[in-house]
Amino acid sequence: MAEPLFERLCLIGVGLIGSSIARVARARGDIARAVVANAKTPATLQRVRELGIADEVEADPARAVRGADGVILCVPVGAYAPVMEAIAPHLAPGCVLSDVGSTKGSVLRDLLPLTPSTVQLVPAHPLAGTEHSGPDAGFAELFQGRYCILTPPPGADPVAVERIAELWRRCGSMVETMDAATHDKVLAIVSHLPHLIAFTICGTADDLAQETREAVLKYAASGFRDFTRIAASDVDMWRDIFLNNREAVLEMLARFTEDAQALGRAIRWGQAAFIEDRIARGRKIRRGLIERKQA
Amino acid sequence: MAEPLFERLCLIGVGLIGSSIARVARARGDIARAVVANAKTPATLQRVRELGIADEVEADPARAVRGADGVILCVPVGAYAPVMEAIAPHLAPGCVLSDVGSTKGSVLRDLLPLTPSTVQLVPAHPLAGTEHSGPDAGFAELFQGRYCILTPPPGADPVAVERIAELWRRCGSMVETMDAATHDKVLAIVSHLPHLIAFTICGTADDLAQETREAVLKYAASGFRDFTRIAASDVDMWRDIFLNNREAVLEMLARFTEDAQALGRAIRWGQAAFIEDRIARGRKIRRGLIERKQA
Ligand SMILES: NC(=O)c1ccc[n+]([C@@H]2O[C@H](COP(=O)([O-])OP(=O)(O)OC[C@H]3O[C@@H](n4cnc5c(N)ncnc54)[C@H](OP(=O)(O)O)[C@@H]3O)[C@@H](O)[C@H]2O)c1
Ligand SMILES: NC(=O)c1ccc[n+]([C@@H]2O[C@H](COP(=O)([O-])OP(=O)(O)OC[C@H]3O[C@@H](n4cnc5c(N)ncnc54)[C@H](OP(=O)(O)O)[C@@H]3O)[C@@H](O)[C@H]2O)c1
Repeated sequence: MAEPLFERLCLIGVGLIGSSIARVARARGDIARAVVANAKTPATLQRVRELGIADEVEADPARAVRGADGVILCVPVGAYAPVMEAIAPHLAPGCVLSDVGSTKGSVLRDLLPLTPSTVQLVPAHPLAGTEHSGPDAGFAELFQGRYCILTPPPGADPVAVERIAELWRRCGSMVETMDAATHDKVLAIVSHLPHLIAFTICGTADDLAQETREAVLKYAASGFRDFTRIAASDVDMWRDIFLNNREAVLEMLARFTEDAQALGRAIRWGQAAFIEDRIARGRKIRRGLIERKQA
Repeated sequence: MAEPLFERLCLIGVGLIGSSIARVARARGDIARAVVANAKTPATLQRVRELGIADEVEADPARAVRGADGVILCVPVGAYAPVMEAIAPHLAPGCVLSDVGSTKGSVLRDLLPLTPSTVQLVPAHPLAGTEHSGPDAGFAELFQGRYCILTPPPGADPVAVERIAELWRRCGSMVETMDAATHDKVLAIVSHLPHLIAFTICGTADDLAQETREAVLKYAASGFRDFTRIAASDVDMWRDIFLNNREAVLEMLARFTEDAQALGRAIRWGQAAFIEDRIARGRKIRRGLIERKQA
């Protein structure tokens, strides 16, 4: 077995993502010699103890990070600022600070100003998840075969970046690197806008007269169902994502709304050629996915 | 074996839906004593002959319907008016005229004025399909366990309605009845709006700079993919659906757009409570589907 990447790896937050990392570390042994877990509520701390997925469970974040050579924030991105305020003074020199948050510009905004010069910040975003949350939802295979995007700030230490990259490779992921702004734009269109649309169409259906709403549930298989699959996601996490990737999400929403209205206008005025062109583009993108075996 | 429901059943259009009906009829024997198939192009007629899924293949729609006690239009809804003009004078007295079109108000508009008083019109819409089309795409199990919605006009002969209902039950479907306007409103939200959104978001992605578009295809698993699943559907069929359910589609699009913009506004102004409420409603509808085993 390879040497563990970290002597003491501290996970702040042990929900779906944090507890999955803990489970991989436990199963493999070559990620960390010891895993320390911290969460907000006594219930979660207790549950993590019962599950036995961490070597130490520590209620105080400042104590949890003490002596750790690796710290990964696994909390909703809206909690980064207060969490960082609590842990920053206690981070060990030489420590690599990483995270798993779904927005990355906000991570630089919230963490970089408070990061001690002796600490290396290497943000990461595993593109893996389910609609469940909490320490019981995690599993060691979650990251297998999924992409993990690193967004190291300019001038990041290549050794620290490689340590986090290797952590994710050992979790089974394919590692990619890009800058935070590109990440946020790409995720806005591939993930955040689809979720925004899914939440919205569910709300639109929910507002319909009782009778029609019943019918929507009954005949959902006709297309609606596919749109709601991602609408079961966690409230806090998605609120934080929308608020912390505000600009890119609003830009993609504006583009999408314009395009939807242009199609609506063509329907209103019976412009068959325009409608056909839009449908044909949908098919083209779909074919692109199938060719890349992403469909 | 039960007596066949029809002596001579004529299918106008033998693509995905028409050829699936032909295959069920062939497999069961109790739907029609003889199936006559008509299509637009010589290539399709020839293919149907090769497949051996109809007893007779007839290039002329007027001759195809002659002597048939059942006729089902299985063509895109935009072709109903010219097809009906060609067949109406040749429909046999006592014949039941049905269809499988995805919009139903347009069917009454296009067929009812030309329907002879001796012919019973019983429109139907099987909620079953794939993204493939043509006579090779059909299969006998397509309608198994799926809903089929009948929209008989006021005063329709109950015996004729029951014959079409029984045809669909023998195809394996659960039969429901509603008026055409309700059908069109329900389908607008469960099917037509989701397709409109899917075509649109693919177009929005297609318009992005080359680099971002590549990334969209690469990271599609993050949500985008689910939205494109239904975007591979047939161009002619969907153009006709949008144009023939114009009012209901535009109304649902307007409601949805308003709701999406309200959520966008809340994101812009950081209104966490509003955002949480919208996400929670998405989860609620999703739970409704899961409880009904529709998810
Ligand atoms: N779920 C996904 O699909 C997914 C995918 C990729 C990335 N992510 C990102 O991963 C992160 C965690 O998501 P998740 O799905 O694992 O969430 P989760 O299952 O809800 O877990 C969140 C964890 O964060 C803890 N926490 C919340 N606020 C905290 C605070 N102020 N101090 C300390 N701990 C706190 C929670 O503790 P308590 O239980 O005690 O409240 C819980 O352990 C988020 O940033 C999210 O954007 C999620
Ligand atoms: N696909 C679905 O998911 C689905 C689901 C439920 C209902 N529907 C409805 O079912 C109907 C047929 O759809 P489909 O998927 O079976 O389409 P399809 O596979 O494209 O087949 C259409 C058939 O109609 C024929 N046709 C077209 N115009 C014609 C004309 N003017 N005269 C005679 N035949 C003509 C075509 O003949 P050629 O091949 O010779 O051109 C072809 O045989 C549509 O009204 C659609 O709304 C479809």
